[in-house]
Amino acid sequence: MEGKTVVVVDAMGGDLAPVEIVKGAVEAVQKNDRVQVILTGIEEQVRAELGKYSYPEDRISVVHASEVITTEETPVMAIRRKKDSSIVVGQKLLKSGEADAFVSAGSTGAVLVGGNLVAGRIRGIERTPLGALIPTKTGVTLLVDSGANADCRPSHLVQFAQMGSIYMENVIGIKNPRVAIVNIGVEEEKGNALVKDTLPLLKNLENINFTGSIEAREIPNGGADVVVCDGFTGNVILKLYEGVGSVLIGTIKESLMSSLRSKIGALLIKPALKGTLKKFDASQYGGAPLLGLNGLVVKTHGSATANEVCNSIIQCITFKEQGINEKIRAVLGREARTKEDKEEA
Amino acid sequence: MEGKTVVVVDAMGGDLAPVEIVKGAVEAVQKNDRVQVILTGIEEQVRAELGKYSYPEDRISVVHASEVITTEETPVMAIRRKKDSSIVVGQKLLKSGEADAFVSAGSTGAVLVGGNLVAGRIRGIERTPLGALIPTKTGVTLLVDSGANADCRPSHLVQFAQMGSIYMENVIGIKNPRVAIVNIGVEEEKGNALVKDTLPLLKNLENINFTGSIEAREIPNGGADVVVCDGFTGNVILKLYEGVGSVLIGTIKESLMSSLRSKIGALLIKPALKGTLKKFDASQYGGAPLLGLNGLVVKTHGSATANEVCNSIIQCITFKEQGINEKIRAVLGREARTKEDKEEA
Repeated sequence: MEGKTVVVVDAMGGDLAPVEIVKGAVEAVQKNDRVQVILTGIEEQVRAELGKYSYPEDRISVVHASEVITTEETPVMAIRRKKDSSIVVGQKLLKSGEADAFVSAGSTGAVLVGGNLVAGRIRGIERTPLGALIPTKTGVTLLVDSGANADCRPSHLVQFAQMGSIYMENVIGIKNPRVAIVNIGVEEEKGNALVKDTLPLLKNLENINFTGSIEAREIPNGGADVVVCDGFTGNVILKLYEGVGSVLIGTIKESLMSSLRSKIGALLIKPALKGTLKKFDASQYGGAPLLGLNGLVVKTHGSATANEVCNSIIQCITFKEQGINEKIRAVLGREARTKEDKEEA
Repeated sequence: MEGKTVVVVDAMGGDLAPVEIVKGAVEAVQKNDRVQVILTGIEEQVRAELGKYSYPEDRISVVHASEVITTEETPVMAIRRKKDSSIVVGQKLLKSGEADAFVSAGSTGAVLVGGNLVAGRIRGIERTPLGALIPTKTGVTLLVDSGANADCRPSHLVQFAQMGSIYMENVIGIKNPRVAIVNIGVEEEKGNALVKDTLPLLKNLENINFTGSIEAREIPNGGADVVVCDGFTGNVILKLYEGVGSVLIGTIKESLMSSLRSKIGALLIKPALKGTLKKFDASQYGGAPLLGLNGLVVKTHGSATANEVCNSIIQCITFKEQGINEKIRAVLGREARTKEDKEEA
């Protein structure tokens, strides 16, 4: 496995598991020879799926996990009780260093709680945010925190900004990414208490390209590469983004079916429109990384198909090869140590 | 003026003032004979605009105000210093009872601050939220608070829910409106501290039809008639709504111009598409009401044209005729008095 990125994949998580998950894993090892996959889950079911494909068999192994955590379960209880679930077993492999990354389409809450309780945080990291990649007019933006921490303190947002910047620069490849904080105006005096307290801290950071406040209206325009906010606001943004998009497209499609004239028109515009809507499909970038853990944890959509699972697995290679966690440790770990030293002195 | 609704209109506020504002006022008195308009602003300019139209002249009067508040000014300073501005002069007419409502397309901050400092709050109302009417798949939803109060307490959200419910039922005419709180999941344990503390209070209210949490994704689907949140979250929702919509439509339009085939298709679908997009234009409902003041204050878009100004003025008639403030006073004033009595005892 020398030099290869080892990715554990939760074969039981997601609406289409294990079928699409296993298929995505097979596609990943076929597409990229720098990745090694470990599937965790009920071995019999996983092997039955694997049996459908021909692939380099030494590149996918199966680690049995007898339990499955569902999205209906309370995350903390589920992680504590189901020690032999695919999520806990998978994250233990991360903790032990046997794997570099963990990918799951299962319960977001359980993946987050498992990340903190099983894999563990990098020293100095106060909170681990979920970073969702959202499509914009000009490319893609990292929304961080997109839902892991509903209540945040200014120091949390500062770390989100730093980790988000490292991720966008090194995994997505955007040089000197523009980092902005979600606000209700760009004027100095605008904001709620959290944003007002966070703004001066972000301005003083030397290791990120902080561009100030961003209004929600500018996010779809690609007004920043990293958009920082608390997890409540981020989750509202993420879900409204999906909601407005799908309602608008749905209503347009309906209107196109309303007359013979518009039906003919619809046939003519179909190819052009398809390309445009594809641009607004973020699944090509893989899943949402949970930043600040020992190892990379990637949460893909609950409805993820093989293609998204495959992209999520391949995304982990860059993460490992670019040494993202070492970079996070170098920047944030040092600050944390300095802070601790100061407190001790 | 017996029985008529008297609406003061800030003739100097907005990007297109005084031209479109005066035109909108003229349209309002032409359309509806139950309204009387007072225009506040620089008399010479206002009269010059009025001179362009023929209209029942006894239905529009002008009250001179020598100063204008711009959107660049700090609201509190502007309201305190510019005592002879169109906003302050107009809101004084509300305070004195000479007018029932005040409509402005000017600085949102100044209109809000003026509402609280000049017109004054109904006794018992802790905070006055801005209620924006946002278009949905099935109609229109009141988003309250859409930006007036960035930081809120649970008791504020409870009053927003009650005032919003009264507004939607009586002004927009939705029977027993469904009231929901913005949340990041519908499960019991979801939410930030504010939402978790507010949920049990809303559940215990008997005078509203509270349906629980709503995820942002469901807002464009028309999942609730009144959507309650703090002003920071509400402003993010309002602006993202506009942003996603305009970027998506802009990108679709661009793609339609990309080939001859799609251009012909675009011509064919134009009528059907136009009807659909009009459905998503909330300007037909008028402006955003600022709830809980002595008299109605309506904030229209800074870019409001005559049509939106006219609709905002006409919206005030229902507000007055349905006795909204009396209803707010009856429900919330009573609760406030009970609370005060308890505290005194």
